[in-house]
Amino acid sequence: MKNSFNVIKTDKNSRSRITEIIVRGKKIITPVFMPVATQGSVKALSSEDLYDLNTQCILSNTYHLYLRPGIETLKKFQGLHNFMNYERAILTDSGGFQVYSLSKLRKISESGVHFSSHIDGSGHFFTPERVIDYQSAINSDIWTHLDLCLKNPAEYNEAKEALKKTKNWAQKSIEHFKKLNREKTDPPKIFAIIQGSTYRDLRKESIEWAYSLGFDGFALGGLSVGESKKEMFEMLDYIIEIVPKDKPVYFMGLGDPVDIWMATKSGADMYDCVLPTRNARNGQALTTYGKIYIKNAAYKKDDFPLDPECDCITCKKYSRAYLSHLYKSSELLSHRLLSIHNIRFLIRQTEIMKKAIEEDNFDNAFNIFLSKYNSNK
Amino acid sequence: MKNSFNVIKTDKNSRSRITEIIVRGKKIITPVFMPVATQGSVKALSSEDLYDLNTQCILSNTYHLYLRPGIETLKKFQGLHNFMNYERAILTDSGGFQVYSLSKLRKISESGVHFSSHIDGSGHFFTPERVIDYQSAINSDIWTHLDLCLKNPAEYNEAKEALKKTKNWAQKSIEHFKKLNREKTDPPKIFAIIQGSTYRDLRKESIEWAYSLGFDGFALGGLSVGESKKEMFEMLDYIIEIVPKDKPVYFMGLGDPVDIWMATKSGADMYDCVLPTRNARNGQALTTYGKIYIKNAAYKKDDFPLDPECDCITCKKYSRAYLSHLYKSSELLSHRLLSIHNIRFLIRQTEIMKKAIEEDNFDNAFNIFLSKYNSNK
Repeated sequence: MKNSFNVIKTDKNSRSRITEIIVRGKKIITPVFMPVATQGSVKALSSEDLYDLNTQCILSNTYHLYLRPGIETLKKFQGLHNFMNYERAILTDSGGFQVYSLSKLRKISESGVHFSSHIDGSGHFFTPERVIDYQSAINSDIWTHLDLCLKNPAEYNEAKEALKKTKNWAQKSIEHFKKLNREKTDPPKIFAIIQGSTYRDLRKESIEWAYSLGFDGFALGGLSVGESKKEMFEMLDYIIEIVPKDKPVYFMGLGDPVDIWMATKSGADMYDCVLPTRNARNGQALTTYGKIYIKNAAYKKDDFPLDPECDCITCKKYSRAYLSHLYKSSELLSHRLLSIHNIRFLIRQTEIMKKAIEEDNFDNAFNIFLSKYNSNK
Repeated sequence: MKNSFNVIKTDKNSRSRITEIIVRGKKIITPVFMPVATQGSVKALSSEDLYDLNTQCILSNTYHLYLRPGIETLKKFQGLHNFMNYERAILTDSGGFQVYSLSKLRKISESGVHFSSHIDGSGHFFTPERVIDYQSAINSDIWTHLDLCLKNPAEYNEAKEALKKTKNWAQKSIEHFKKLNREKTDPPKIFAIIQGSTYRDLRKESIEWAYSLGFDGFALGGLSVGESKKEMFEMLDYIIEIVPKDKPVYFMGLGDPVDIWMATKSGADMYDCVLPTRNARNGQALTTYGKIYIKNAAYKKDDFPLDPECDCITCKKYSRAYLSHLYKSSELLSHRLLSIHNIRFLIRQTEIMKKAIEEDNFDNAFNIFLSKYNSNK
């Protein structure tokens, strides 16, 4: 399979589409939901669990992996695939977001960002080139570049200034990426991170240089970080209008099922979020008939599966009563079984979307999803 | 398969033996290690995990199940097998030990024991008959009776008095057990709990009435609760000398691999312990070459399996470096993968013992085990 991107089918009545991303012999069919393996492990799940869930691609964090287990360990294993024993596609984010959200005492300069580790306070310096080197050690399939993240709302001038830096870093990153991968017959891909806060002209500028620099995809950053849902989807619609159609669009950090349906309708292709695993650990399950809290007294003797329409092992083998008991008894198995279900729920949504797009029936499928999901049966 | 107990083979040079316990169509071959599902879940493991580990029987706790999920929920599911989706044999302890070790404000009378829940302080009353009723609701395959546990060292008179109560309760229990199961073509088994602290005459008396009352097996209680290893094994040797050979001998609470080898050499058949799962959660792995702490810096880049002689999925799929990373990063997967290995390690020991007994080679196999286990490679 040659490294490529192809649009397979676009829905007749919406912008939703099926695409295939082929990278290093691995095929990712979109719409795709990518579970998050922050530290090289999708929380509570093994690689075998992920295969059973039909994951196509997972996301891991350059910042976290750099700090732990560290680049030397990853090099020893020729990368994260071997280290965590996961052979399907891995996308790595650049660490930019984590530097801003987790670490203290960061100091941003032209050449990069100084920060101290959230684990032990030790000092570190990320440059665009180093972040590319780290991803080379991680040996992921889709890379991203160091960027500068802002919270919304952000001042226009602040956003413009941040974008300037991000562009500069993106340029250095892709040059270094090309140099590193020049000799490879089957190189990884690199996505641009599209910033610009809530400002259309900045988003447009960001897309234009990302495309002209030759990035393989558009990762939308700085959305779902403080703005309203309305603003978020208006910006997504605007971006989809102007974005070239020959690259995948990755909406970073989106995990709410309604949002993923909405974004796919608008034309986005890829999603990742810790929501399914984090909510699982809080006892919340995503189901066809809405979100449920498993500790609710109603489930104490309930011998039904979590979600009767789900095909995951949790729903095939265990009852709500047992899951409720595990959660209330603080049993670790609770986290695993609910995480399995929640991730499978989101992946299954993308499979339902794909089928609907094949049949030019996306809007109808979306309505069916919503009517069940909001019924709270 | 008819409900029975058969001695298959005794080693020529030791008391170690292979037996089969057949109960309700399930066959348990001993020596057997039974993982502990305290609250209806072997911590961090699913039923599928247990099947993969080749578990023959697990142990669950009447006290814990009574408090959570509660008897009504278990009745709704026709017992624990359905509730936790585990179809192999389940042994339940009587709750006696938990009443004494976990609960506060207990008050012991002739008819039973008043105690307050360790969860919410609510008051409860266990009688011998009720504990049998609870196990009927749990629908386990091997039941035990309410007993009175003491810590060692215990005064002779105290031990004698406690034993008198235990005997009285055992008698009431087996009568109630027989009444409940009279009509059943394939009834569960019930084991006597042999008490008597470190006093030979009390242990002898305990075994004699347990046998005469018609119990299906001898569960040795009140050992490994404060006395020295030497005292413990001397008492075990004494018990094995006098115990009838047509019933299984279950050494409660034993989990250290050396101890299990020793006890099997002495003639015990069955074991349970939380050690493999509890140690796993503390980052300790049992291996052929001794115990190791996975967080040790030596494992940071170690691409070897935890135990090269082990056939569990943890050892087949993951490296020490990855396991070390997971543990140090507080990833939940660490608990599951180490628990899988530790339980498999103990079950594999019993498989090695069985093969050795078949070949009249137990002592030699024990020496090989010890020389590797103590080498700390």
